[in-house]
Amino acid sequence: MASTVEGGDTALLPEFPRGPLDTYRARASFSWKELALFTEGEDTLRFKKTIFSALENDPLFARSPGADLSLEKYRELNFLRCKRIFEYDFLSVEDMFKSPLKVPALIQCLGMYDSSLAAKYLLHSLVFGSAVYSSGSERHLTYIQKIFRMEIFGCFALTELSHGSNTKAIRTTAHYDPATEEFIIHSPDFEAAKFWVGNMGKTATHAVVFAKLHVPGDQCHGLHPFIVQIRDPKTLLPMPGVMVGDIGKKLGQNGHLRLWAALPKVAAQPGLRLASASLPQDVRQRFGASLGSLSSGRVSIVSLAVLNLKLAVAIALRFSATRRQFGPTEEEEIPVLEYPMQQWRLLPYLAAIYALDHFSKSLFLDLVELQRGLASGDRSARQAELGHEIHALASAGKPLASWTTQQGIQECREACGGHGYLAMNRLGVLRDDNDPNCTYEGDNNILLQQTSNYLLGLLAHRVQDGACFRSPLKSVDFLDAYPGILDQKFEVSSVADCLDSAVALAAYKWLVCYLLRETYQKLNQEKRSGSSDFEARNKCQVSHGRPLALAFVELTVVQRFHEHVHQPCVPPLLRAVLGRLSALYALWSLSRHAALLYRGGYFSGEQAGEVLESAVLALCSQLKDDAVALVDVIAPPDFVLDSPIGRADGELYKNLWGAVLQESKVLERASWWPEFSVNKPVIGGLKSKL
Amino acid sequence: MASTVEGGDTALLPEFPRGPLDTYRARASFSWKELALFTEGEDTLRFKKTIFSALENDPLFARSPGADLSLEKYRELNFLRCKRIFEYDFLSVEDMFKSPLKVPALIQCLGMYDSSLAAKYLLHSLVFGSAVYSSGSERHLTYIQKIFRMEIFGCFALTELSHGSNTKAIRTTAHYDPATEEFIIHSPDFEAAKFWVGNMGKTATHAVVFAKLHVPGDQCHGLHPFIVQIRDPKTLLPMPGVMVGDIGKKLGQNGHLRLWAALPKVAAQPGLRLASASLPQDVRQRFGASLGSLSSGRVSIVSLAVLNLKLAVAIALRFSATRRQFGPTEEEEIPVLEYPMQQWRLLPYLAAIYALDHFSKSLFLDLVELQRGLASGDRSARQAELGHEIHALASAGKPLASWTTQQGIQECREACGGHGYLAMNRLGVLRDDNDPNCTYEGDNNILLQQTSNYLLGLLAHRVQDGACFRSPLKSVDFLDAYPGILDQKFEVSSVADCLDSAVALAAYKWLVCYLLRETYQKLNQEKRSGSSDFEARNKCQVSHGRPLALAFVELTVVQRFHEHVHQPCVPPLLRAVLGRLSALYALWSLSRHAALLYRGGYFSGEQAGEVLESAVLALCSQLKDDAVALVDVIAPPDFVLDSPIGRADGELYKNLWGAVLQESKVLERASWWPEFSVNKPVIGGLKSKL
Repeated sequence: MASTVEGGDTALLPEFPRGPLDTYRARASFSWKELALFTEGEDTLRFKKTIFSALENDPLFARSPGADLSLEKYRELNFLRCKRIFEYDFLSVEDMFKSPLKVPALIQCLGMYDSSLAAKYLLHSLVFGSAVYSSGSERHLTYIQKIFRMEIFGCFALTELSHGSNTKAIRTTAHYDPATEEFIIHSPDFEAAKFWVGNMGKTATHAVVFAKLHVPGDQCHGLHPFIVQIRDPKTLLPMPGVMVGDIGKKLGQNGHLRLWAALPKVAAQPGLRLASASLPQDVRQRFGASLGSLSSGRVSIVSLAVLNLKLAVAIALRFSATRRQFGPTEEEEIPVLEYPMQQWRLLPYLAAIYALDHFSKSLFLDLVELQRGLASGDRSARQAELGHEIHALASAGKPLASWTTQQGIQECREACGGHGYLAMNRLGVLRDDNDPNCTYEGDNNILLQQTSNYLLGLLAHRVQDGACFRSPLKSVDFLDAYPGILDQKFEVSSVADCLDSAVALAAYKWLVCYLLRETYQKLNQEKRSGSSDFEARNKCQVSHGRPLALAFVELTVVQRFHEHVHQPCVPPLLRAVLGRLSALYALWSLSRHAALLYRGGYFSGEQAGEVLESAVLALCSQLKDDAVALVDVIAPPDFVLDSPIGRADGELYKNLWGAVLQESKVLERASWWPEFSVNKPVIGGLKSKL
Repeated sequence: MASTVEGGDTALLPEFPRGPLDTYRARASFSWKELALFTEGEDTLRFKKTIFSALENDPLFARSPGADLSLEKYRELNFLRCKRIFEYDFLSVEDMFKSPLKVPALIQCLGMYDSSLAAKYLLHSLVFGSAVYSSGSERHLTYIQKIFRMEIFGCFALTELSHGSNTKAIRTTAHYDPATEEFIIHSPDFEAAKFWVGNMGKTATHAVVFAKLHVPGDQCHGLHPFIVQIRDPKTLLPMPGVMVGDIGKKLGQNGHLRLWAALPKVAAQPGLRLASASLPQDVRQRFGASLGSLSSGRVSIVSLAVLNLKLAVAIALRFSATRRQFGPTEEEEIPVLEYPMQQWRLLPYLAAIYALDHFSKSLFLDLVELQRGLASGDRSARQAELGHEIHALASAGKPLASWTTQQGIQECREACGGHGYLAMNRLGVLRDDNDPNCTYEGDNNILLQQTSNYLLGLLAHRVQDGACFRSPLKSVDFLDAYPGILDQKFEVSSVADCLDSAVALAAYKWLVCYLLRETYQKLNQEKRSGSSDFEARNKCQVSHGRPLALAFVELTVVQRFHEHVHQPCVPPLLRAVLGRLSALYALWSLSRHAALLYRGGYFSGEQAGEVLESAVLALCSQLKDDAVALVDVIAPPDFVLDSPIGRADGELYKNLWGAVLQESKVLERASWWPEFSVNKPVIGGLKSKL
């Protein structure tokens, strides 16, 4: 059973069934097993396989093709599945500590099966759990145990009906009553009802509620979290004084509920207010590294978005390799993947998966480092800077990943034509389930402002105090050379010289320097002409701050992936394909900024734009024979992928036809047939009523 | 009751309820009633009002907030509603002939209520009807009557499971049997089953089936349409030999079913083969102008897409004018519409609605002209050229409209934050229902090739034969001056000079000339280096043919709207706002081609790009106070819009809260509560099974 780097482990990475995809698989320039081992590592591959197999063998997780589940039934199923995950206990707290990358691996597995399941599990055990932990005192440790025993079920209640982004305007209050030693939590009216509270509209027993703290005779102490019991765990009926319900159907993720709660007057017991306090050092460290490591939801969202993109691209590329339409002669039809148009539509998203997946994991490890520092009481300046840098990267990384996935799923949907519009092929569900990634933890456009502000702050520090650009993860260090970088020009004149991500890296560095300088100047100009800081920032965001933040995070993603695929430890047979993926993602992303490259003078003449465009197409063409094998690396088993047109055997039409025949009552006439056959309309019979 | 241009007719255009939107309504630079009359005309306004009122007053059309309708129930409801439309008979064939614009008005009204209803009605009465008519003989007139009496129910069966775009590869056959004088329609296997047959999976009794005609002793005669009876109208059971069913849930439009049918061996009666034949001249003319006018589905899809965008933008802008978040001080929050970012996200789509709606209507009238010519037996060269020009405009207009709407709805969804993700607010349904517009009648990317081929053909004609660029609708006439146009440069240096659509028009003309020349050269270069015509076209499409087709149709949309708003008959008080809409749509669309403008040398220096960008933002800022009134012109009544956050009274939270409380069992605990409270999981209890 020992695995070898060359051939992989057949039990761990079984062969694919023979079929129409064989041709492309045979053409691949590399071994998909070798790439899978390089990308994930044997340990993670085994971990994922354990989870996928458990789900596939458990009837509770059986797929139900053609069933038209009611919302209520779907929610029940999702709850039962979540409970079952606790019974499997795939990842203990100890394992999290030892192998932190298993946390995103678990998220990917559950999310690939069903986003609703991942959300329900994640928000209870990790988000609620870490909220209780990270600002909690010793007495809250009992809650942690109850959370992991599923004795209570939690949610995180910050957003209100009328306030989301602007948390300072949250209106729920917590008044301390010294007589009873209670905090009275109060929503003054329905606009202050907690709303969009993920994830457990009908099952949450406890909520971390954010409210403005008032102490008698004192001014408001600002927003604080409180643990409020909202339902009786024995009956799931609301506690007295709590009005709580479901907000209704969402576009996606309908397996898990969102809750709203109006809290007319609820008493939170003394001591239930969360506050920083001391915990035994070893416990604190462990939790800081495991649970606490997910305190930044933005980093998890990058992972959630990437898994959705993996599924969509796997479906669309296997479809494209087997769907034939038109050809050089009337007799011969060729797979649609052979068309440059189809390659251009899909392959950049395949490259984006590899680049963003690497970014997602590396950022997660950075976060673990941060959390370990926090847990060990590190109060150094470096620790604080690390926090800022991760915040800046996550605040732009989440928009980049969620938008790339949003656009990628849409392209996949369209690239599969009508078959992509059939619900059973799953692209619609993926689009709907990915959509909240653009919104929760902060609207993408608003989050980008935090990243541009971070960069502007560094530049101001440099201009005013002569400080160097230096950050713990080195993402901004290149900016120190900005005057020289701004003098550079694009000097690649042939497509062949452009097929390496180093070309895009140099262009991105120029672009970030350019946008940073322009934004800084524009902001100061606005202020000089009388705008307040608030106005000036708003006026600069569309054309300056937003592209600056995006270009900066794209550069970071490109840089990290470029370094990753150029490490000496990359197996020789993988270097070419990984290099192409890196170059394709980099140049394709860069090409969306081509107007700015011209405008600022980095590009000049017709050739620059042409070379960039031709290089993207050339890389697509070079990668098309590797596309199926690259999908084999990222696609989960068929049972999890759950898309007839995306199955690994490539039997597109047989699978689709088989699934159609499984639909409920597929051949039966409609139950309401007499409405056509018997109850005929009188044409124009109601015209007189108009 | 006489209406006046100044004040409008209160009964026709009633005042809006007072509320939070008053502030913006008071700030508008024009009267929304005057603009409504100018845009639609009193006759159409009255027609729409009649339809909307009939639906609102009829309990069959009542909205059911919070109901979780099963697919079966929703389909039944949609069928009953379609039948009811026949009872209302809003638009007689005579009226269609007299006022052709009432056809798109009817589509807009039904589609705004529910896309499934519009699709069901449209595909039966107009698509099936005109397919039967336009290639039919006299004996098919009996079918027309049955269609309009709903005695039979029809569908249009071209696409097969394995073939859509490449209709030449359709595999269903029709063999003529002289012994029985029958055509035997045959699907050789399931891959040749008719699939995606809009719209009536379970109710269609007849289908226009496209099959390859074979006559004994003769070669194949190519694709021909046949009328095949697939179900017995008395029982709705399939006819012997027909296997027919529902393809299952789609991403959207689930109220109407799509059918698949495998036709193992079905006899079509002699004479049921559709063929061109003569009809009495007057009947032919009428049908040619009314039914036949919709033979081009692409033109109708432009209208369907625009109506979806109207609904989405109306919802998002009313939300933005009432949702407050952050502000210059901590005490004062401002409507999110005040932020340049929100304006930039939404207002260009508002402008796009006005420009595309005008394009949609004008193209529909062009089509009516074409159909009238066909019906009157016009066989002139002009008539043939008109056909080609309309085909080219519709083949790029449909992609432009459906993509603009797709992107616009997504932006609206995100711009409404979490509330946009709530199903009851309708943005998700709109996105799902609009999606097939990108696919049916031809994948957008494939259709664009038809437009670029049209333009390339004209240029080849010019180069080879010295022919002039001339077309009946004059959309290509400017190309005659292409050598001179290519020498032009962008010479506007101030934002103020850029705020007119004439600036964008000039730039678009240059862009189309540039792309046409580049595409032509690239194509010839590919051919010279040995590519076949098939290969050469495929290699040029991504970077040349596709942007050429899009730029050409965008130019046409901009040109038509520019001329429309600069007519002398435009009421003086509307000129400013319409001019801004025209300029905003034009410059915003153009800005997506900024890299090409630089690359080809039309733009040079930093200023050109800056001016373009600043002009877009300046126009957004100028239009924001008019946005609510501009929405009032295009939004249907609240009952039809059906979105709590988009209601005309602007009572965002009251409406949302009220709707939430209407949800089914909103306050009840989940029926499966014992699964939490009683049946506790054994944590890790299944770990040994892994």
